[in-house]
Amino acid sequence: MPKEHSDIGLIGLAVMGQNLALNIADHGFQISVFNRTTAKTDAFVAANSDTPGGLVGAPTLEAFVASLAKPRKMIILVQAGRATDAVIDGLIPLLDQDDIIIDGGNALWTDTIRREKELKAKGLRFIGSGVSGGEEGARFGPSLMPGGEKGAWNELKPIWRAIAAKVDKVTGKPLEGAVAGKPVKGGVPCTTYIGENGAGHYVKMVHNGIEYGDMQMICEAYDLMKGLLGLKPKEMGEIFAEWNKGALDSFLVEITADILQQKDPASRKAFVDVVLDTAGQKGTGKWTSVNALDMGVAAPTIAESVFSRCLSAQKDERVAASKLLKGPKKKFKGSKKALIEAIHDALYCSKICSYAQGFQLMREAQKEYGWKLNFGQIAQIFRGGCIIRAAFLQKITEAYARDKKLANLLLDPYFNKTIQAAQEKWRKVVALAAEYGVPAPTFASSLAYYDGYRSARLPANLLQAQRDYFGAHTYERVDRPRGEFFHIDWPDKTRPQIKA
Amino acid sequence: MPKEHSDIGLIGLAVMGQNLALNIADHGFQISVFNRTTAKTDAFVAANSDTPGGLVGAPTLEAFVASLAKPRKMIILVQAGRATDAVIDGLIPLLDQDDIIIDGGNALWTDTIRREKELKAKGLRFIGSGVSGGEEGARFGPSLMPGGEKGAWNELKPIWRAIAAKVDKVTGKPLEGAVAGKPVKGGVPCTTYIGENGAGHYVKMVHNGIEYGDMQMICEAYDLMKGLLGLKPKEMGEIFAEWNKGALDSFLVEITADILQQKDPASRKAFVDVVLDTAGQKGTGKWTSVNALDMGVAAPTIAESVFSRCLSAQKDERVAASKLLKGPKKKFKGSKKALIEAIHDALYCSKICSYAQGFQLMREAQKEYGWKLNFGQIAQIFRGGCIIRAAFLQKITEAYARDKKLANLLLDPYFNKTIQAAQEKWRKVVALAAEYGVPAPTFASSLAYYDGYRSARLPANLLQAQRDYFGAHTYERVDRPRGEFFHIDWPDKTRPQIKA
Repeated sequence: MPKEHSDIGLIGLAVMGQNLALNIADHGFQISVFNRTTAKTDAFVAANSDTPGGLVGAPTLEAFVASLAKPRKMIILVQAGRATDAVIDGLIPLLDQDDIIIDGGNALWTDTIRREKELKAKGLRFIGSGVSGGEEGARFGPSLMPGGEKGAWNELKPIWRAIAAKVDKVTGKPLEGAVAGKPVKGGVPCTTYIGENGAGHYVKMVHNGIEYGDMQMICEAYDLMKGLLGLKPKEMGEIFAEWNKGALDSFLVEITADILQQKDPASRKAFVDVVLDTAGQKGTGKWTSVNALDMGVAAPTIAESVFSRCLSAQKDERVAASKLLKGPKKKFKGSKKALIEAIHDALYCSKICSYAQGFQLMREAQKEYGWKLNFGQIAQIFRGGCIIRAAFLQKITEAYARDKKLANLLLDPYFNKTIQAAQEKWRKVVALAAEYGVPAPTFASSLAYYDGYRSARLPANLLQAQRDYFGAHTYERVDRPRGEFFHIDWPDKTRPQIKA
Repeated sequence: MPKEHSDIGLIGLAVMGQNLALNIADHGFQISVFNRTTAKTDAFVAANSDTPGGLVGAPTLEAFVASLAKPRKMIILVQAGRATDAVIDGLIPLLDQDDIIIDGGNALWTDTIRREKELKAKGLRFIGSGVSGGEEGARFGPSLMPGGEKGAWNELKPIWRAIAAKVDKVTGKPLEGAVAGKPVKGGVPCTTYIGENGAGHYVKMVHNGIEYGDMQMICEAYDLMKGLLGLKPKEMGEIFAEWNKGALDSFLVEITADILQQKDPASRKAFVDVVLDTAGQKGTGKWTSVNALDMGVAAPTIAESVFSRCLSAQKDERVAASKLLKGPKKKFKGSKKALIEAIHDALYCSKICSYAQGFQLMREAQKEYGWKLNFGQIAQIFRGGCIIRAAFLQKITEAYARDKKLANLLLDPYFNKTIQAAQEKWRKVVALAAEYGVPAPTFASSLAYYDGYRSARLPANLLQAQRDYFGAHTYERVDRPRGEFFHIDWPDKTRPQIKA
């Protein structure tokens, strides 16, 4: 027997929406659902009639709104962009003061800022919440990154904390084993208030940028083992499975081990060998890179991972080019064991640099948008539910616990010590990749980032001198305070030269 | 005695505007000039009363427009963005059908597309023209990249061809030696019709992106010679001067030689040693990188050069980091002569990759915007007047003469042969940079680009398998035609695993 009014509602019954609704109902909340196509709503509700909280199907948007307890809370899970705006526009006339719209899609954070402002002017409240973890995450525990007005968050909090992934309070390890109708009990939920307006969607975007980097780095590790050592997928799968027991313990390394050990159902060959080498993208890695460029924050590892996907998409061009452009012919003759170890370290060091870049981005965005981000907590809610979940994130949480104002992850004693210990092997791997012709753009870029960041003096003095030479852009001096600008009257190269 | 109507007009008398006006007047064209501050207009005209063509100062925009021969041609050289729109808005009511507005600023090409469309609807014509070469270029011969309606270009052509830089018809070498009142005679002008609407400004933007890459690569060459060999600026200046006689012959290498041999007027130390290592940027390199990301074209070298400037700007953070983050301690003991040669080759190979990326961008933009770009001619008009002018560009013109539809510069026999011959040294330099801790982001990124582009098979198969695993994004197969998508039901990692 359903309650008269549902605790919350959800609009948009694609897989993510269905799974999030079931997750909510599993936790005892009654949820109203609405989809443009009523048949879809009806079928979904009919197929899931026995959830602990209960699903209520609404045939119209009006009926949907009327079915919710006040202040109403309704989650939108439709395509980011215009579709989201259209749903919001449809809701506005039906809502009352203080009702709360929650956008769980992959919205651009600037859209979220705009929407929050527009709705606030109408007396409505808006939360933009990143939802990470794909379809399975949505169903059994996603990582949730809500941004918006604090009061609205307090209304949503019980539901968001209930449905989020849970991690062990002490170790930070994800608690697993949920099945339909029986979610996991206890643990720390992977959600926390991120900040005002677009902060949640911003952090979700950076999460995705970091995910692009992680995936590309794993591919480079695989490609180096394959290219230099000629290892077979199964053996590499075993190596990744081994790595997953140590510092690299993470969802992506775990599934990589699975994938490499998977047989292709059709051909019975190694599955990975039959998959075409063209990777798609949905844009959030690109957004992260564009935003890094816009804010002037170095995030080269993330950008390289996006460009790697671009290059992968040019399959025909690459195949044609491979016939003309030759690489080195030498065969690697060093120790297999040592090289595998070195690749492990290269992957871990590159990963540290990539995360350092992602957290620098968030630090800069915080200044730009006036947010107060808690970086340790952000790392913690990445621990469970989301694609980049990894033991490693605990180290980030600990780093910010040691120093809340840490300028860069690289400066934390743990990460610094780790890189110090591993850098010789990392450098060796980047050198080998160059010498043997295996592309390793993110390994190399991360190393250049590390070496650039630790340079008290970069060669940009020469660059600025060039700018002064041809564009009179002026320069600052090492022997004068910052903010004093100088210029030399350089010879004019287009005319006969007369030196002063 | 001035003519009743001027041949052309110019609005905006900052240095670029003044110099371009003087260049035009030097070629016998009478030019009307207008500036918001009338005193500036008057002073400029008074100080330049003896030009061959003659300057006419206009006190108001109305008087300015009235002073021009019909169809009127007027160049705007004010700040890109709102200032340009404001001037255009001011002009519109004063103009007649078919009058031509020429924007010579560094406009974003999408603004140029918009403006051209808006003005066309009003019966006016609009040309967006890149003007490259800095202040000296504007004065004695810039590289000019006009985009817009062909008929409008035909009206502007005589003036644009007259004032552009000139190169030798056979060798492509820039003709130099212009002085005020006496421009160089003969030669091929560095301007050509680029394409419809925003094509000129787009090509100018890519030019600037390439310029960012060139500058950063030179800095890396310098930094490697300094870091690995401990060379002094004067000696490095001599090396760059030597390089300028060979394949690297270019404006930027030439001025680098000058800069490195320059003494600081204040301290009498080597000039480059007193310049602070923080490089500024005005945004066009960033635009190029953002556009590459938006179009999905790999341009990592250009993006790395932008990120290098970002990192250079974080001076205080780097100084602090340098005290904590240690690099390798080893000292280079190899042959000095061989290393210098290898750095030369690394610079040249990286440069080829960077240009390959820039031209791939233009190729993609051409499809996106329906332009018909002539890449050989574009390389040719870069030969003189602009910042990236270099002997090397002749090789690009020749490459497109050999094959108009060349997919990538790397595939041209000359560039391919050059890289084949030099790649071992290039690889060695990237490896040494990694091992000795000298950041060389664009050298490394260019090499990874080369190795990625020539890979018939990249490790993106693993990446796409990961995407299928956690996001059901599907994959294509090597043994099936493109466009067929497959999916595996992967185990659900959040629940106890039941394998099929």
